[in-house]
Amino acid sequence: MTDRTDFTHDPAARSWAESANGHPDFPVQNLPLGIFAPPSGKPRGGVAIGTEILDIGAIAALLPEDARDAALLANDSTLNALLGAGNDTLRALRHGLFRLLTDPAWEKAVRPALYPAGQCRLHLPVQIGDYTDFYTGIHHAVNVGRLFRPDNPLLPNYKHVPIGYHGRASSVRISGEDVVRPNGQTLPPGAQAPLFGPCKRLDHELEMAIWVGRGNTLGRPIPIGRAADHIAGLSILNDWSARDIQAWEYQPLGPFLAKNFHSSISPWIVTMDALAPFAAAQSPRPEGDPLPLPYLLDPADQRRGALDVTMEVFLSTARMRAEGQAPHRLSRGSMTAMYWTPAQLIAHHSVNGCNLSPGDLLGTGTLSGAADGSKGSLLELTDGGKEPIRLPEGESRTFLEDGDEVVITAFAQAPGFARIGFGECRARIAPALRLET
Amino acid sequence: MTDRTDFTHDPAARSWAESANGHPDFPVQNLPLGIFAPPSGKPRGGVAIGTEILDIGAIAALLPEDARDAALLANDSTLNALLGAGNDTLRALRHGLFRLLTDPAWEKAVRPALYPAGQCRLHLPVQIGDYTDFYTGIHHAVNVGRLFRPDNPLLPNYKHVPIGYHGRASSVRISGEDVVRPNGQTLPPGAQAPLFGPCKRLDHELEMAIWVGRGNTLGRPIPIGRAADHIAGLSILNDWSARDIQAWEYQPLGPFLAKNFHSSISPWIVTMDALAPFAAAQSPRPEGDPLPLPYLLDPADQRRGALDVTMEVFLSTARMRAEGQAPHRLSRGSMTAMYWTPAQLIAHHSVNGCNLSPGDLLGTGTLSGAADGSKGSLLELTDGGKEPIRLPEGESRTFLEDGDEVVITAFAQAPGFARIGFGECRARIAPALRLET
Repeated sequence: MTDRTDFTHDPAARSWAESANGHPDFPVQNLPLGIFAPPSGKPRGGVAIGTEILDIGAIAALLPEDARDAALLANDSTLNALLGAGNDTLRALRHGLFRLLTDPAWEKAVRPALYPAGQCRLHLPVQIGDYTDFYTGIHHAVNVGRLFRPDNPLLPNYKHVPIGYHGRASSVRISGEDVVRPNGQTLPPGAQAPLFGPCKRLDHELEMAIWVGRGNTLGRPIPIGRAADHIAGLSILNDWSARDIQAWEYQPLGPFLAKNFHSSISPWIVTMDALAPFAAAQSPRPEGDPLPLPYLLDPADQRRGALDVTMEVFLSTARMRAEGQAPHRLSRGSMTAMYWTPAQLIAHHSVNGCNLSPGDLLGTGTLSGAADGSKGSLLELTDGGKEPIRLPEGESRTFLEDGDEVVITAFAQAPGFARIGFGECRARIAPALRLET
Repeated sequence: MTDRTDFTHDPAARSWAESANGHPDFPVQNLPLGIFAPPSGKPRGGVAIGTEILDIGAIAALLPEDARDAALLANDSTLNALLGAGNDTLRALRHGLFRLLTDPAWEKAVRPALYPAGQCRLHLPVQIGDYTDFYTGIHHAVNVGRLFRPDNPLLPNYKHVPIGYHGRASSVRISGEDVVRPNGQTLPPGAQAPLFGPCKRLDHELEMAIWVGRGNTLGRPIPIGRAADHIAGLSILNDWSARDIQAWEYQPLGPFLAKNFHSSISPWIVTMDALAPFAAAQSPRPEGDPLPLPYLLDPADQRRGALDVTMEVFLSTARMRAEGQAPHRLSRGSMTAMYWTPAQLIAHHSVNGCNLSPGDLLGTGTLSGAADGSKGSLLELTDGGKEPIRLPEGESRTFLEDGDEVVITAFAQAPGFARIGFGECRARIAPALRLET
């Protein structure tokens, strides 16, 4: 990312699209990108503005040349081509749209391209080629490591290697789609042989999604100094996890069926350009920790440090919804829990020559804070299932039950800037299929 | 797969395309599918026949209706649509092509669609959505496990769970493309902090590629009894591995940069229909081993057992090539080393609801035999790098050096049937890029 702010970050800017002004997620300073289908129409690129969605392709002709070219790329069923055009192109588009949406002279021409968001259907913003999940949440790594190795929770490589592994691209789904509880093999405590059946320890994982913009050629690493240019933006990611399946399957090659049954993402890509004001301006690496190897070390990247994005996880059970209860907040965390910056993830991922492609998805890994109220999974919140969470109406949970809905929201705010948000990543647990056991 | 044989498996069948008769890989009984570009033309679907390639789309009009529809699907830059049409469609196409290529009455009409293979460029046969690598080679699992746990090489889950993990789809390349030696972090023995530089323990892995045909919907597992119908065919896979990078990075989430810099596959998909005569007719699971859980157990699948495909790995160094030496055979193995059948991999992969898509790539994992001469990686052949291999001309190797070329071939033969082959999977090691250390 850049820390360059400009007129599009002016907190006083207002849009003639009135619902944007004061909107907690989508004021005119945000303009996140997504794919939507209007009530009768095909999926296409749009931006969220207040409670409405602007059809980018429909107003392409009103934009200056560089932004118009970008708008034509957005006029497609996925945003891969637009993201692949690079961050200068994304910035030109955002600047052009900002001018159209703030200058009342454009209202008459632009208004026909606005749709009420509630009447539109949102789609995955890109066709995901590859999905890589990292493990940058150091407090999460410590919390989980402690369950297995109480005296030595963090493995020796953690502060040197941005740990990551490959995930499943085909089962990433947009917010709102039900998650079917997976069946699988588990080895219950004391059992001699594995059992087959529905997962009993179904969990959420609070993550952020990092979208790759411009890609690289196989064999040509992306240097850390240019890595930020290859990140298009961020969304919210819930990396659903079947803890009991994972415990039995993951040795020696890592998680597989415990993760690949479903991952949920929020529909809007908040661009790095919109996030420019929200660099935490501190290294996520505490004083005294080993210095990263040179291929991971860039002074500007270290100076910008982590991103100051706040995420909240809410749970609502079927009974809570039936009784009109508001969702219960499980945790409140921050992207400052990332031990590695997004740019470091790009540089590491490609340093061996691995090629990244536009629209590839990088998960941050579960972002838990140091405090109890900021733990990003039920595994951590319940101490491995031993300490149930008390919910309103007398319910409790160790892991997720059928009908439970998890909602994750996220936003960035800083003095002197307008708050911008990510919308939400929401999904409900549907019962497992009955399969032959 | 099926064990149904028919007229297309008749060993006496001959083609008017003379180079096919007695061809070790591509007699008329094979007809494997690939994507090729003729000397002046775009990539398109073809079948290998002897030393020639038949342009499928060009002869579509000569085929009966079901095969013609298949041929039109093959007339594309990838075979994803054809594979997704399912195995009945692939069989209709193979039967139709067999008739055209064996009946001399068709020669005049078909001959213009044949190109000398040596004048064509071969491409990846599909756009790979997701790549999953399994670990079905039980002797490999024992050999590698012994390096870490001499007394207890096989983990407790191995005989219950078809162990697998997600690989990187973007870096799969066709046979013939150089492999650039990866740079990365390693922790040499005795070092206190990791070093950065070129991989010093670069290895091949002898695997077979299983191509997914028809896919499934997210949340809808593929039952074991129907799993074979979702496998389109096989190719050869070399899953290049950086052992020193792997040793330092792989805890706790599995291999990542040690694998995703490059994977090589052979260009031709040998269909399960062509492989029907080569079921090993014995369970790969020794008597006394635990029975698979019911979701992995199908009598017909167990009866067909493993596939009797033989694979050979050859190494040629730059000096050997300069001196006109033939490649040195490193090993000769068999797909009967698979502890799980291809159908079991499909059933397991989808049992949690994970959706497979046409053209997805499943690696078998390294297929080593029990004997020394059948070990499918240098890690095993050299006992973890301790026992160098002696080569002609006085050279030796523990791991691969720049300029080394690894060639893998594979074939199936059985009494009463024509031998069919896979062609080759070949790649040479190019020097690492010089990066800032």
